[in-house]
Amino acid sequence: MTYQPPVQDLMFCIEHLSHWDQVSKLDKYADFDLTDMEAVLDGYARFCAEQIAPMSYEWDNSGAKFDNGKVKLPQAHKDAYAQFVDMGWQSIAHPAEFGGMGLPRCVGAASVEVLNAADMSFGLCPLLTDGAIEALMLTGSDEQKATYLENLISGRWSGTMNLTEPQAGSDLGRVATKATNRGDGTYGITGTKIYITYGAHDLTENIIHLVLARTPDAPAGPKGLSLFIVPQKMVNADGSLGAENTVNCGSIEHKLGVRASPTAVLNYADATGFLIGEENRGLEYMFIMMNAARFAVGVQGISTADRAYQRALAYARDRVQSRPVNGSSKDAAPIIEHPDVRRMLLRMRALSEGGRALAATTAGLLDIAHETHDKNALMLAEFMVPLIKGFCTERAVEVASLGVQIHGGMGFIEETGAAQHYRDARILPIYEGTTAIQANDLLGRKVMRDTGETARQFAAQIAATEAALAAGDATAQAIGAALASARRSFEAALDYMIEHSRSDIDAAFAGSVPFLMLTGTLAAGWQLGKSALAAQTALSAGRNVPFMTQKLATALFYAQHILPECAAEEARIIHGASSLLAAAFPE
Amino acid sequence: MTYQPPVQDLMFCIEHLSHWDQVSKLDKYADFDLTDMEAVLDGYARFCAEQIAPMSYEWDNSGAKFDNGKVKLPQAHKDAYAQFVDMGWQSIAHPAEFGGMGLPRCVGAASVEVLNAADMSFGLCPLLTDGAIEALMLTGSDEQKATYLENLISGRWSGTMNLTEPQAGSDLGRVATKATNRGDGTYGITGTKIYITYGAHDLTENIIHLVLARTPDAPAGPKGLSLFIVPQKMVNADGSLGAENTVNCGSIEHKLGVRASPTAVLNYADATGFLIGEENRGLEYMFIMMNAARFAVGVQGISTADRAYQRALAYARDRVQSRPVNGSSKDAAPIIEHPDVRRMLLRMRALSEGGRALAATTAGLLDIAHETHDKNALMLAEFMVPLIKGFCTERAVEVASLGVQIHGGMGFIEETGAAQHYRDARILPIYEGTTAIQANDLLGRKVMRDTGETARQFAAQIAATEAALAAGDATAQAIGAALASARRSFEAALDYMIEHSRSDIDAAFAGSVPFLMLTGTLAAGWQLGKSALAAQTALSAGRNVPFMTQKLATALFYAQHILPECAAEEARIIHGASSLLAAAFPE
Repeated sequence: MTYQPPVQDLMFCIEHLSHWDQVSKLDKYADFDLTDMEAVLDGYARFCAEQIAPMSYEWDNSGAKFDNGKVKLPQAHKDAYAQFVDMGWQSIAHPAEFGGMGLPRCVGAASVEVLNAADMSFGLCPLLTDGAIEALMLTGSDEQKATYLENLISGRWSGTMNLTEPQAGSDLGRVATKATNRGDGTYGITGTKIYITYGAHDLTENIIHLVLARTPDAPAGPKGLSLFIVPQKMVNADGSLGAENTVNCGSIEHKLGVRASPTAVLNYADATGFLIGEENRGLEYMFIMMNAARFAVGVQGISTADRAYQRALAYARDRVQSRPVNGSSKDAAPIIEHPDVRRMLLRMRALSEGGRALAATTAGLLDIAHETHDKNALMLAEFMVPLIKGFCTERAVEVASLGVQIHGGMGFIEETGAAQHYRDARILPIYEGTTAIQANDLLGRKVMRDTGETARQFAAQIAATEAALAAGDATAQAIGAALASARRSFEAALDYMIEHSRSDIDAAFAGSVPFLMLTGTLAAGWQLGKSALAAQTALSAGRNVPFMTQKLATALFYAQHILPECAAEEARIIHGASSLLAAAFPE
Repeated sequence: MTYQPPVQDLMFCIEHLSHWDQVSKLDKYADFDLTDMEAVLDGYARFCAEQIAPMSYEWDNSGAKFDNGKVKLPQAHKDAYAQFVDMGWQSIAHPAEFGGMGLPRCVGAASVEVLNAADMSFGLCPLLTDGAIEALMLTGSDEQKATYLENLISGRWSGTMNLTEPQAGSDLGRVATKATNRGDGTYGITGTKIYITYGAHDLTENIIHLVLARTPDAPAGPKGLSLFIVPQKMVNADGSLGAENTVNCGSIEHKLGVRASPTAVLNYADATGFLIGEENRGLEYMFIMMNAARFAVGVQGISTADRAYQRALAYARDRVQSRPVNGSSKDAAPIIEHPDVRRMLLRMRALSEGGRALAATTAGLLDIAHETHDKNALMLAEFMVPLIKGFCTERAVEVASLGVQIHGGMGFIEETGAAQHYRDARILPIYEGTTAIQANDLLGRKVMRDTGETARQFAAQIAATEAALAAGDATAQAIGAALASARRSFEAALDYMIEHSRSDIDAAFAGSVPFLMLTGTLAAGWQLGKSALAAQTALSAGRNVPFMTQKLATALFYAQHILPECAAEEARIIHGASSLLAAAFPE
């Protein structure tokens, strides 16, 4: 089974959902049109499909190896990474000023999807490097940018994020790694960081660690954290590499999935670090880049879902088993003809395409927000980020599980590959903030802080899409009706949340994840509703008929099979808090 | 983390849900009372918790080894199995006539749950032996019973079921293994069987394979299959073991989970087999024992869910992270205090206990049906079996996934153990008939065949429980109201199914799995509703207050958080067929 990057759907989403009419008018992107972007994406997709995707099972099966403090990856993995660097693929969405291609975020998101669908373990190294680039772009000094950015954007060096410690996971206020100002412009960093993705590896000449640590006189808790650059190898004034820093890899983890992505324990023993920005503002800087990292992990969910879908689809076409239930033939049929296999495949496709649509629209909003400082765009984009992270990753687990199911017994055999997606997907709702953390972000920061104003604007925009659908044909009307019902569930849940934010905060947060799932399910359904409108316009003009027909069918399936879940989430939120909060857990 | 067998809840279910008032009056079980059964279960539970459960991760991690045609299991696994045999644990629910303890099925089900919670890989060997015993009891000749049963019931020999071939999975009509009558009372069996659980291993002196094969002149399709006993080692007339039969293990599979359970490819090269019953009735015999095997796999779902729950609960009590969201403390709290962790734990507990309740009531019905030939009991029990298999196993996947989520990053590390449940659970909705096969059984054989009569009796019994709940306190009333709403969804879906069984069979089967999940979710909710009634009676009398309070809380949580899913399933069934059937899958 080969991976076929969904370039047509990615471009459909960019053209119709990513606010391309506005993004294309931004000065920063004046040089690009849709054709240019498609050409870049096509080239990238070909590289991912041909060089990465066929190796995914083999790399996972051999896994990263730890030997005497060093982490080794298979030679083929190293070769593919070298090609990735040679072709400049790390640089797609990074600024031209430091050697990047400078393409808009919607193309960046598409490229993240395709690479991670080809192989999530491979994709994690560039993803973390993207995070480090984003952090340095936003918060680094000119000298720091000059020292590190070009080599990170080329992919010759990689980046890491060092947040977690054994006692400090979701709760970063408990970070204990120490940073001592040496008085010479450097800090001595001492402590142990865990779960560091690509914390040690042999793909690049250097690794740039971004490390949260605490100066001796810093306040306790989250407001006493500072952010440091700790290069694995020191960088000389002329840009050449110097001595090894005192950062050692103690071990790598034996993980359920993404086994070709080394997850390191890093021991910092008075390692040389450079402060980013000001002391005690580290967590604030982390939050700035966290939107980007969370968005990217959400996109990994779409990647995993689509790859699992493609694999299951190929199997369902090939595998012949049992006669049609309607008695139309005496011969066994390819299982894709059996209604329940269709149901599972369509569910996988609808959730994949729904997630992709959500990511595209948010990428566009982020571009508009960053370039024009449009407050509404920023608020809505920030409202969407926890949905993409929370909803797309939870759905990825579900979709990967369906992918195994479609394979039957074969799905449980590792060599088939379906199980790898099921294993890989499971980290997605955990890292870069668990689903509960995303739900707290959505509810606390994005909904309650403005007493639901952004949430109501979101609902109003959905109502506008419903109105447009109501003016369409029977399919559009059915989608619009399901959307309206889901949107009303959202509004009822929102009212409940705003009311309880004042009167009973525990009762509100008891429904935080149901609220996130309701909102994410609705948001993706909304974008598929907009997709249906665009597809109907295209069909009226006779353009891309098979693709547009399929798009419409996916949107209708989503409306009829997935949007009804919103009412169940509403019921949980509105009626479920007391049973949740009152229950005891006797020893 | 140690496994604590839920003996109290198992006994609660036996006492209050398994129709114990009727079962205890059956001649066959006249010798047993609840105290006897609890004593047996206690002893068995202690063995499983002490000798099996602590080894589960280690056995899975080393896995079964294949070496030159032989399968080897770790010495500790062999030792534990030898103890299992010495203590007579294989024999719990098998007839005294062949050396069994002869306990009722409700105790048998409880013992299956506990063993498989301790270690599913270990549990699979006795589970398959149970299947072989059941088949021989029901369909074997007196001579066959005399030759094999005692050693199977003691556990000294194990049994296997050989159905699947590469081209014949769900579709057993495609079985091609040949059986040639040698004219001396034996058959020569030739062919390849795959996915044979414990098809080869070194735990027992002999392995008794039950094999579906086709005689040369048999009709094509499912009606030409015959069932054979193929002993791995021939059994001499005096009961001693003779020569090795010509059955060879070609390889074992590299699986996602249950890695300490060898899954073998078996090559039959004119192996000596003995016909069971009559030629061409093999599939019919298989169906007789399939209810038992499917029931047992459903129970494995409960096992996995409960073990995952216990592990997550222990972690959530220990792990301290983040302050309470209501600001009640400045210190970080054990994560069990955070609302969303409570939500996940309660969901795990409610689904585990709901499944257990469903299994207990069905075990009781099966006992009544088999001993009294009560048609209503038999029809309802057979209606329940696909629910237990389909619902409990799908829910096990969900619960195991929540278990990983509660552990955060630790959940993704194999040594934690949470990931093992997630891996193990994934085979449950596949083997012994996928969820779609269960749904077809429910819809085709158990609902449409009697045009919904049994289904309507099921709904009427639920309505009676609702009425009893409506007469209770506020908690009981809330449970009753949620149950009524879910039951109405079921009735609407049932009407749709009966109507479309005549007019549009594809449109009916498009909703087969949603119908199974709706019905299973409702059935478990019903049994928890009955549990709530029993708990309230006990509480009024001041008996077992902490346990009964917890039982009531679980039932209320299930009603408010899980039963609302029935309405979403109803919507999918009633409105979702056309979008599912019409969608195309372009290349």
